[in-house]
Amino acid sequence: MLIGKVTGCVVSTRKNEKLVGSKFMIVEIKEETAQMKKIVAVDNVGAGIGELVLVATGSAARIGCGEEKAPIDAAIVGIIDSGQGLGEQI
Amino acid sequence: MLIGKVTGCVVSTRKNEKLVGSKFMIVEIKEETAQMKKIVAVDNVGAGIGELVLVATGSAARIGCGEEKAPIDAAIVGIIDSGQGLGEQI
Amino acid sequence: MLIGKVTGCVVSTRKNEKLVGSKFMIVEIKEETAQMKKIVAVDNVGAGIGELVLVATGSAARIGCGEEKAPIDAAIVGIIDSGQGLGEQI
Amino acid sequence: MLIGKVTGCVVSTRKNEKLVGSKFMIVEIKEETAQMKKIVAVDNVGAGIGELVLVATGSAARIGCGEEKAPIDAAIVGIIDSGQGLGEQI
Amino acid sequence: MLIGKVTGCVVSTRKNEKLVGSKFMIVEIKEETAQMKKIVAVDNVGAGIGELVLVATGSAARIGCGEEKAPIDAAIVGIIDSGQGLGEQI
Repeated sequence: MLIGKVTGCVVSTRKNEKLVGSKFMIVEIKEETAQMKKIVAVDNVGAGIGELVLVATGSAARIGCGEEKAPIDAAIVGIIDSGQGLGEQI
Repeated sequence: MLIGKVTGCVVSTRKNEKLVGSKFMIVEIKEETAQMKKIVAVDNVGAGIGELVLVATGSAARIGCGEEKAPIDAAIVGIIDSGQGLGEQI
Repeated sequence: MLIGKVTGCVVSTRKNEKLVGSKFMIVEIKEETAQMKKIVAVDNVGAGIGELVLVATGSAARIGCGEEKAPIDAAIVGIIDSGQGLGEQI
Repeated sequence: MLIGKVTGCVVSTRKNEKLVGSKFMIVEIKEETAQMKKIVAVDNVGAGIGELVLVATGSAARIGCGEEKAPIDAAIVGIIDSGQGLGEQI
Repeated sequence: MLIGKVTGCVVSTRKNEKLVGSKFMIVEIKEETAQMKKIVAVDNVGAGIGELVLVATGSAARIGCGEEKAPIDAAIVGIIDSGQGLGEQI
């Protein structure tokens, strides 16, 4: 899983019908301090803006959402409370 | 899912038979302002050139197209109306 | 799918038995003008050297080859005739 | 699989229910000496901080954890004892 | 598939039980001359150090190893004899 910070959200009215009701959060993945990458992840754990989260990608994301038939490839699967060795990740 | 802007389309006559009828859009993925990556995504939600879209990749894309037997690895699954924290993404 | 140009081919005698008969083409993926990445894709649509093609990756590639039991992770699934917005891709 | 060094761990209380009991380790993937990428991998082999490990990603990770229904996309599947050609990886 | 050169191997005693007996080779993926990336791939075709090989990743790798239940995400599926357009790959 990747570590990222929730920085925003996205509204989409015209979308795949299996995505109706999904909450799309913008997560800034902090792989390195110099290289940031934003992805849109479906949130099922109630993450708020500014929170540090665990993001699962690929088929794991659909499993995380309990929606095997929805076109989801990134999901927030946990909210990080604390960590050892996170360093400048936070 | 990734955020991108539809910038064009592609015509392919000689192709896998499961792709007949698919609409191939060129989507510019804007991960960072300095690094752009173009991919070809199958469109099932009616996206037009210039629109900001959500793109699902991998096996999620086939699910998004309702075509489990087509060799699709990227699909437009939603059109973005607005967003909070999109910043320079748009 | 990715856009690339077929630039060569590869011969492999000692290989996985499910790959016997597969045609391995070298495809130069043109994501950006400055960054090129070569991959080897199995060709089932009859692409020739110099042609611009659509490449599917991951599990989509196996589906594109009709070979669910072959270790294929990249396949040429279409030959591009023309496009709008391809820009410097060609 | 990727080679990485375990550098820390992460605590997450609010998380997907299928992840309860999982041990989240921070692994620094050393692809090149200049480019480091941290991922969070579920550990099932008892890796400790500082150990060099093999990390499987994607659907292989869920298989490695024996948890097909958990949203896991990275797992520690082996602890490296020694190697030939590891060079500056260690 | 990716093209790479076998440069070493890795020994792991404490590992996932489904990996017992697997031969872990270090493969240097040569995407560009300036950017090298090492991965660990399971070898089932008898590749030796210094040989140029085809590497399948993701779920294709497990298929290549005939081990659907092993946490494998990269496998050597062919040894390259020769090629046209390999250029500075070799």
